Amino acid sequence: MSNMLGKIENETIRAKGFLFNPKKKAITRSKIASMIDHTLLSPDATDSQIEKLCIEAVKYSFHSVCVNPTDVPFASKQLFGTNVKVASVVAFPFGATAAEIKASETRWVVDHGADEIDMVINIGALKDSKYDDVFDDIKSVVEAAKGKIVKVIIETSLLSVDEKVAACVISKEAGAQFVKTSTGYSKGGAVAKDVALMKSVIGDKMKVKASGGIHTFQDAVEMFQAGASRIGASRSVDIVTNTK
Amino acid sequence: MSNMLGKIENETIRAKGFLFNPKKKAITRSKIASMIDHTLLSPDATDSQIEKLCIEAVKYSFHSVCVNPTDVPFASKQLFGTNVKVASVVAFPFGATAAEIKASETRWVVDHGADEIDMVINIGALKDSKYDDVFDDIKSVVEAAKGKIVKVIIETSLLSVDEKVAACVISKEAGAQFVKTSTGYSKGGAVAKDVALMKSVIGDKMKVKASGGIHTFQDAVEMFQAGASRIGASRSVDIVTNTK
Repeated sequence: MSNMLGKIENETIRAKGFLFNPKKKAITRSKIASMIDHTLLSPDATDSQIEKLCIEAVKYSFHSVCVNPTDVPFASKQLFGTNVKVASVVAFPFGATAAEIKASETRWVVDHGADEIDMVINIGALKDSKYDDVFDDIKSVVEAAKGKIVKVIIETSLLSVDEKVAACVISKEAGAQFVKTSTGYSKGGAVAKDVALMKSVIGDKMKVKASGGIHTFQDAVEMFQAGASRIGASRSVDIVTNTK
Repeated sequence: MSNMLGKIENETIRAKGFLFNPKKKAITRSKIASMIDHTLLSPDATDSQIEKLCIEAVKYSFHSVCVNPTDVPFASKQLFGTNVKVASVVAFPFGATAAEIKASETRWVVDHGADEIDMVINIGALKDSKYDDVFDDIKSVVEAAKGKIVKVIIETSLLSVDEKVAACVISKEAGAQFVKTSTGYSKGGAVAKDVALMKSVIGDKMKVKASGGIHTFQDAVEMFQAGASRIGASRSVDIVTNTK
């Protein structure tokens, strides 16, 4: 763990000199579609809304649907035999519960058909510099996921630059596959500069998911150019069809 | 369960004729203080903020502090030997997870010092009229709470009148002690008319907690006059000290 502390320190120093310099590379709408987790996390979502979400995800070849745990069994049934994955959330949107509860919830959604897990970190523990607790929390989910992809939501809008860096280093050390900017239910959503900073900390073997406030194709392209490999969005159909 | 369906039907019919007629009874500031769950549920709450919350709760004789699960062990230690209770939340603020996860989280917070549990119902299931699922969900928390007080957050701002009535009937059938209006993290908070409607459905053996948007002494008095026995608030110190 002392190694982790050293890495946090080094990356924090490095981040002070970080320059945001996005690449203006082109991308097609179909490539953007394949990066989208088509998302409906409203606590009052009904089966018919989840059904619509799944139909859209198949029609537009989105990567996945992202739904609350309670909707995983139904979405999983709807998408059986398709290429669309089921992503679910753990300790969403606050992340302020015990590591063992996050692990139990992870096992539950995996057992009921989830292919990917978007978990929320313990933000208060991060702010209190309890890095071991933050690590154990993420690690417990990674282990419970049994090889399924884990995305670590760090909730950038609540964090200082140093805290964003620490959260990324810890997520990497804990063996997660993604860091993710936002729940979409806090003070702010994805910011391109944050995406680039996160990517610079985690390196090539991990990926960034940008989520929160991505409403248009141009928003999605901006996140891609900043370094995001995955987009979380609810207005996904608009993103891939609205040419205005 | 057919009995429960009948009760929902009867209460729904009765609620159509419900008239909101609050009693203009007086109440002191100290009595209001004793009804307050002094609340800090921000996902980025730090130990020093929780410490301050606990100190205030003791100083002003609030009923309890209401904190996230991750803060229960610390708050419980801070309040040891005082009269202030520790309340915590389960599946907060979405409620969109499995009954067994809610039960596990309930056991965890009780084992770590929680005296009261504020759980969020499965709102989507209620909207889909899956009353058995809503019942099982609440019942699993009541059983896991092993006699500790359970407050059922129905999130009134997302519900129709019929759905509010059904949620109250089901909470009563499942053995909860309170129904609670709101998480404070949705479209709206406590409304006096909702409090009165809820009280009319649950009767004398259960209580109503009003929460969300209660900022002043007058707000609190309005909820009390509508029938609330408990107030959830973060601006509690202001409520009991600001005489303007």
